[in-house]
Amino acid sequence: MSNNLQLNSEGKLKHFLTIEGLEKQLLVDILDLAESFIGVNDQRIKKIPLLRGKSIVNLFFENSTRTRTTFELAAKRLSADVLSMSIATSSTSKGESLLDTIRNLEAMYVDMFVVRHGISGAAHFIAQHASKHISVINAGDGQHAHPTQAMLDMFTIRQFKQDFSKLRVAIVGDILHSRVARSNIQALNTLGAAEIRVIAPKTLLPAQVETMGVTVSHSLADGLKDIDVIIMLRLQKERMTSALLPSESEYFKCFGLTPERLKLAKPDAIVMHPGPINRGVEIDSKVADGPQSVILKQVSNGIAIRMAIMAMAMQKQESFDG
Amino acid sequence: MSNNLQLNSEGKLKHFLTIEGLEKQLLVDILDLAESFIGVNDQRIKKIPLLRGKSIVNLFFENSTRTRTTFELAAKRLSADVLSMSIATSSTSKGESLLDTIRNLEAMYVDMFVVRHGISGAAHFIAQHASKHISVINAGDGQHAHPTQAMLDMFTIRQFKQDFSKLRVAIVGDILHSRVARSNIQALNTLGAAEIRVIAPKTLLPAQVETMGVTVSHSLADGLKDIDVIIMLRLQKERMTSALLPSESEYFKCFGLTPERLKLAKPDAIVMHPGPINRGVEIDSKVADGPQSVILKQVSNGIAIRMAIMAMAMQKQESFDG
Amino acid sequence: MSNNLQLNSEGKLKHFLTIEGLEKQLLVDILDLAESFIGVNDQRIKKIPLLRGKSIVNLFFENSTRTRTTFELAAKRLSADVLSMSIATSSTSKGESLLDTIRNLEAMYVDMFVVRHGISGAAHFIAQHASKHISVINAGDGQHAHPTQAMLDMFTIRQFKQDFSKLRVAIVGDILHSRVARSNIQALNTLGAAEIRVIAPKTLLPAQVETMGVTVSHSLADGLKDIDVIIMLRLQKERMTSALLPSESEYFKCFGLTPERLKLAKPDAIVMHPGPINRGVEIDSKVADGPQSVILKQVSNGIAIRMAIMAMAMQKQESFDG
Repeated sequence: MSNNLQLNSEGKLKHFLTIEGLEKQLLVDILDLAESFIGVNDQRIKKIPLLRGKSIVNLFFENSTRTRTTFELAAKRLSADVLSMSIATSSTSKGESLLDTIRNLEAMYVDMFVVRHGISGAAHFIAQHASKHISVINAGDGQHAHPTQAMLDMFTIRQFKQDFSKLRVAIVGDILHSRVARSNIQALNTLGAAEIRVIAPKTLLPAQVETMGVTVSHSLADGLKDIDVIIMLRLQKERMTSALLPSESEYFKCFGLTPERLKLAKPDAIVMHPGPINRGVEIDSKVADGPQSVILKQVSNGIAIRMAIMAMAMQKQESFDG
Repeated sequence: MSNNLQLNSEGKLKHFLTIEGLEKQLLVDILDLAESFIGVNDQRIKKIPLLRGKSIVNLFFENSTRTRTTFELAAKRLSADVLSMSIATSSTSKGESLLDTIRNLEAMYVDMFVVRHGISGAAHFIAQHASKHISVINAGDGQHAHPTQAMLDMFTIRQFKQDFSKLRVAIVGDILHSRVARSNIQALNTLGAAEIRVIAPKTLLPAQVETMGVTVSHSLADGLKDIDVIIMLRLQKERMTSALLPSESEYFKCFGLTPERLKLAKPDAIVMHPGPINRGVEIDSKVADGPQSVILKQVSNGIAIRMAIMAMAMQKQESFDG
Repeated sequence: MSNNLQLNSEGKLKHFLTIEGLEKQLLVDILDLAESFIGVNDQRIKKIPLLRGKSIVNLFFENSTRTRTTFELAAKRLSADVLSMSIATSSTSKGESLLDTIRNLEAMYVDMFVVRHGISGAAHFIAQHASKHISVINAGDGQHAHPTQAMLDMFTIRQFKQDFSKLRVAIVGDILHSRVARSNIQALNTLGAAEIRVIAPKTLLPAQVETMGVTVSHSLADGLKDIDVIIMLRLQKERMTSALLPSESEYFKCFGLTPERLKLAKPDAIVMHPGPINRGVEIDSKVADGPQSVILKQVSNGIAIRMAIMAMAMQKQESFDG
């Protein structure tokens, strides 16, 4: 009953491309399933046979060791066969189009593509053109979306704060270029957070950012007041040279999260970051390694969340077959 | 009773290096075994335990994501452990000889090498020098042979056309430099095709090509008459600059397969291509994506054929042990 | 009862970083366990389920196809999941510190790091900072230690010569820069070899080398007298240009192992080399491929030894959990 590309005709998750358009209950289902997988990672035998005999291809057009590693570990712990392809250096160098690459992998009876691409919309494009039996997971596309990151952030927030409806969440840094920010804003709105506050210099905010359902602050000192959850964004060093920002040290002076500034938030506020962190640029090491930081917890939760999303998307295939 | 390097003392397949010298019955056995594996790729659990605990090493001295991927998937679906090595960037850079690399991998109790190499005869050389318990599969050597590609082509032809003895097959393009063409001509002759017609400009044909058991045409328009199967070859862009060919557009004008030209073949002719295709160079997109194209079927069949060849070559080891 | 970083509170092996400080019995236990694994590599199904569901990450900051391959095969034959990361080209390029990389992988519930690094002490550093449940195996750190190589060398010596207490072992070549030499000297001393003789030009010996428990010779002709085991070291070509050595041919003239020189040792002396060998630089091909060479036996034993060390280090975790 949905024309959302991500759902099959029964409204079940088939692709996972963006948080946009997904209903609250579906997000909650993902969080609940991930919770059941947390234990798997602590067992002596960290493996369940849910996706045994399935072939998953990591299609990474953009390099990211960390994200690729979490998807690979998640897939192996579900007992799937995984194949990682760095596409920049492979078939496209022979001039093959993206669509031909996809068609060929499909023909090899692959079940799932995990796609990372520098161009916004790449994962959607692949999902639109892939044959019916294939699921596509977006592992980050341009400046558009990074929905598995958003879901692991939601999981981490729920782990520490339970009820979303009472939470004030600050997202700090380069909102303009951040797919993490976009997906997190959508997820927090869907899950009903009390307030989502973006804190950034004007040059790093999208035009009409308020229409995304957020409040805006241009000062970290003012903006952290009453905040329960602080999501720091990674500062891309490229921004420095593009005249959007004066310098790293200047940025840190205004928007870097220091222990002093952290005190301006609620005393039990948690600090999050999608990683890899730039110590001394957007975050002080004392905060990153301090007691309020849940950054490594996010990494751990990332395995369980990706297991849950892969398992759920693959399930739609079973009902499709059966 | 054979002095063919590819067979063991009982005449069973041990290495798979070239179609040359293999008997018709052996080729048919491979096709039949592959047919039994087609179902595996459609199952929910795409895995059979035939090669469980076997170690297969992909030795790719020449880059080919697609071929490496099919071998990797085929090996995993047989439950083998696979290790892919890109040799250009590894031990040979420390000045180790090919033979030392082989000796070392053998010593690690590897069971099979899948070899891709830019030099003709490389797979033979390795098979000659490898220790007794090892099987070598040629995944393409220089301009010499690409026998697994030929077998998947034969499989695809049989799938659509059954009886080889009535078939007229055209191979179009750069016959001179093509290992795919050489292996296909040998396989088609062994399986008893009625006619194998090579269609190419004179500069892209080997001297005395007729001795290979083919008829020759220098015009696509004339050559396609009465043809049941059209095998298009990939045009290597290097040929353009080497003065063997005038230009891409000129080539397409003379030897590109367009919908109009395709009509000159039999109405139910199938169109094949080993991939990756150069759209608009050797083949028009309308043909490549059209109803007579079986190009993606070839890719699918490639998995089953490689499973069959690997399983059969490994079986000889069992009888050798037992 | 040991403050050795490598042992847990019960004195069981947890990390394997260096031979230094390990007791003779522990080394013998590793050799014995490896012996029980030799059979696994000869079986039709070369796999035992000892580390099923464990996640092992190969962290190779220094390129080494051969060593990485043996660790990967060893891990797969123990049924572990293995993930190989070439770190030079990955996250450190985004400016992430070594410690952040480690922390992140830990958070993914990894069980073991196999570390290769160009800087002496890197594996120790990681073991010191890794969380409690993780084992670290040193696969070579700078010029410091290569303990798994030393153990496979000990295994090979025991295989051919049994009793260490009667053996005179020569180590020939660039002792100064060799982590293999350091680890072998320590292992031979611990296992009670009768004599360890280092044979090298003065420029390639550490200051006060005698304090390491070795005798010294500067001449291959004199030094090989009464020797049972000859361990040749690989000559790093970099040494040539750094003025420590005149030229390759000069070096071969003085310290290359030829069939003539080999006759100066005991008639049943064995010749070893950690590989990859430089034919005609430190060793004549006739010797490397001759009847007294056990170089490929070393490679085979390397799989069993690495299986033993990984299994033993992981066992400490079981007793730690239980």
